[in-house]
Amino acid sequence: MSAPVVDARIVRTRKDVLQAALDVVIDEGREAVTHLHVAEVAGYARATVYKHWPTRTDLLTAAFGRLAEMEHHAPTGDLRGDLVAELMTFRTGMEQHRLDRALAVLADLATSVPDLAEVRDRLVGDGEREVRRLLSPRLSGTALDSATLMLCGAVLHCRLLHGELPSDEYVSTMVDLLLDGIGTLSR
Amino acid sequence: MSAPVVDARIVRTRKDVLQAALDVVIDEGREAVTHLHVAEVAGYARATVYKHWPTRTDLLTAAFGRLAEMEHHAPTGDLRGDLVAELMTFRTGMEQHRLDRALAVLADLATSVPDLAEVRDRLVGDGEREVRRLLSPRLSGTALDSATLMLCGAVLHCRLLHGELPSDEYVSTMVDLLLDGIGTLSR
Repeated sequence: MSAPVVDARIVRTRKDVLQAALDVVIDEGREAVTHLHVAEVAGYARATVYKHWPTRTDLLTAAFGRLAEMEHHAPTGDLRGDLVAELMTFRTGMEQHRLDRALAVLADLATSVPDLAEVRDRLVGDGEREVRRLLSPRLSGTALDSATLMLCGAVLHCRLLHGELPSDEYVSTMVDLLLDGIGTLSR
Repeated sequence: MSAPVVDARIVRTRKDVLQAALDVVIDEGREAVTHLHVAEVAGYARATVYKHWPTRTDLLTAAFGRLAEMEHHAPTGDLRGDLVAELMTFRTGMEQHRLDRALAVLADLATSVPDLAEVRDRLVGDGEREVRRLLSPRLSGTALDSATLMLCGAVLHCRLLHGELPSDEYVSTMVDLLLDGIGTLSR
């Protein structure tokens, strides 16, 4: 009956170490992500970190990969409400898990580390999946891509470059502007 | 008659050093921005760099400030064409001057250095000015802010998180989706 206990420990260790790696890369930059420093910040032995993630890229890949476990809004069938709620979930991720900072750092790393470009693509694909799915009965191809970029981009841009989380009113207005545009297109 | 020659030299020195500072912060991170290292990269004496910009923050502020000198599209009076052309100018800045990387780095620095938050706000205000001006006869308040975030955010998001410059077709489609939405609102 001891297996579940061991499993829970491993799960906790992985979570602690990967959160520490994410904090270190966001706060101190990529050069600070060494096995020793991440182990110190997480409060584990360096050997433990090496055992799970032999290289720095393994460690960064796994750390950013954890962000893919973020929750999405469970759709109710009301397109406007579902889009607003899904963008609010993105906003919550930025507020509670510094998702905006993590994405900016990952975007930077992805320009020089091919393995991390794959992580970025998976993560962004996962992040945008629900917005695309909600819009897909109304749009396809370039229009679907563009609309997804507009909604997700507006929320991220507001936080990264204006330094603020978008208000409820901003998010609703973005969705309304887009849905009104789509309404016109499909007439 | 020697004054203009001296002026031209100072202008060139400023330009070379600030470009070097921008390259260093983008490629090597904020810690690498020292007077000595920037002087070496630019090919000038460290004393010259100190004389113009006594502190690291002075140097970074001036380096990011240079990005505000980017050109905007000269409007022709055709709203759709002017918006598309202005977003293309933003795209050109990302392609030729790594404006996307510079903005991502500045967004990061602005979270910890108040002087750089001011630089970010000025730069973003300047960057979005023309899009806002073009849309302002049709939108105001929250709708104007949201529409500006959607267009500028979509272009930046595409580059930063999808690793690609948006194609001509994407940019036109974004503008069309937005203008169609505005058309519906004002009916």
